[in-house]
Amino acid sequence: MNNSALGIFDSGVGGLTVVRAVQELLPGEDIVYLGDTARVPYGSKSPETIRRFSDEDVRYLLQQEVKAIVVACNTATAHALPMLQERYQVPIVGVIEAGVEAVLADPRAQRVGIIATRGTIASHAYQQALSLRRPDMVIIEQATPLLVPLIEENWIDHPATRQVLETYLQPLLDQRIDTLMLACTHYPLLVPVLQEMIGDRVRIVDSATTCALHLQQELRQRDMLAEPTRQGNLSIALTDLSEQFENLAKRFLHKCPPNISRVEL
Amino acid sequence: MNNSALGIFDSGVGGLTVVRAVQELLPGEDIVYLGDTARVPYGSKSPETIRRFSDEDVRYLLQQEVKAIVVACNTATAHALPMLQERYQVPIVGVIEAGVEAVLADPRAQRVGIIATRGTIASHAYQQALSLRRPDMVIIEQATPLLVPLIEENWIDHPATRQVLETYLQPLLDQRIDTLMLACTHYPLLVPVLQEMIGDRVRIVDSATTCALHLQQELRQRDMLAEPTRQGNLSIALTDLSEQFENLAKRFLHKCPPNISRVEL
Repeated sequence: MNNSALGIFDSGVGGLTVVRAVQELLPGEDIVYLGDTARVPYGSKSPETIRRFSDEDVRYLLQQEVKAIVVACNTATAHALPMLQERYQVPIVGVIEAGVEAVLADPRAQRVGIIATRGTIASHAYQQALSLRRPDMVIIEQATPLLVPLIEENWIDHPATRQVLETYLQPLLDQRIDTLMLACTHYPLLVPVLQEMIGDRVRIVDSATTCALHLQQELRQRDMLAEPTRQGNLSIALTDLSEQFENLAKRFLHKCPPNISRVEL
Repeated sequence: MNNSALGIFDSGVGGLTVVRAVQELLPGEDIVYLGDTARVPYGSKSPETIRRFSDEDVRYLLQQEVKAIVVACNTATAHALPMLQERYQVPIVGVIEAGVEAVLADPRAQRVGIIATRGTIASHAYQQALSLRRPDMVIIEQATPLLVPLIEENWIDHPATRQVLETYLQPLLDQRIDTLMLACTHYPLLVPVLQEMIGDRVRIVDSATTCALHLQQELRQRDMLAEPTRQGNLSIALTDLSEQFENLAKRFLHKCPPNISRVEL
């Protein structure tokens, strides 16, 4: 039993979809969330820069004495997770392994499309992890860099978003995918419009829910879960504060965020 | 006469449109360009964070012993220029005064639309400067935060870009603007599609060319122009390197960029 807080970080506020899943599954856990909003996005930047930023994020969370860390950002998981796990003692969990499990949960998955930022796609992290477990699987990767800006603008229902999605999805549909992996923590907000566009033909999976399950297993194995009778607290630290980020946080969390503080890394 | 280099900075590579204008007007000047690509964009971040980043950008350029500095970013000019001018001795020129001059160059300008990032619009810097000079002018501001991502993706000719532009421009056209100020150094790349969309009805002005003229005047007044017979050099320093930024640099400069180095601030 360990009542210390969990640390969860992302380049911005997208990782709050993971926070929401963790709160639902593990309501007794305190959570310290760090969003590096001063330097968001990570998805279009180089692996070297992403590793440097992620390392600074982890150091901040360790100063808050967290018991474990979730990298709630696909790009940071893809480029920095092995380095972070090697460098630090606390358990560090990423979103990619969870995403891979989510795809493999349906044994009928044969032709999988992956959509993600430029950085995540360039890492081929999903492709490699899936191919290792299922060498016969057909995997089609597609960088979709305009989706994060459109989601952050709350243009989910705008015709331009549909037009952008059509351009991005057509090559995947041409390849007759049966599964679409949303490999970015922002993308769960697009699920309603995606379902409307690709309907029943394609199963949509995302990593937020599976990531929470994966975290629960890790903590249980190490006897590090908080007392289940507790009521966990959430605190949010951002490296840049703006009204826009607060509005976004509300949409990602599905409720009003608690007090948000600004921190420097 | 002063053959030391000019320092020009922007949050990313958009400021290279200013570099191009300066090179055309002042071919003898050496230029050190700094693009803070590790933390791009500035336009969606808070004034406080933009001032901190801009200060670090200026300090880097001063270490390169530049004789004068151009803030080739509207958001940084809007929020940080007065602070920078107060704090440092070298002449520091922004893009907003130049943009305002560009609007006022046509005395028939009566109804002016300003499009820019969220940060520039929130500062009301253009509105205030124009109103001061022409209190009767009708000014309509419109934040257009999706244009930078679309330009950086090179989706200039994509139907989604037209759809986004229609949504952004309609309120301005409804107000019967006669002038459209492109108050972001990325936007000159949109001029062909804008001209097609709003035709002869509206004069389009941008700050890059006027900024170079303004800089020339400042340097001449202080006898700080380089010898005109020289052939100026351009060096580019970015805080994050990626293939994407190199491709973008080529589009903004209209030629292959020189060797690009990565620096830490």
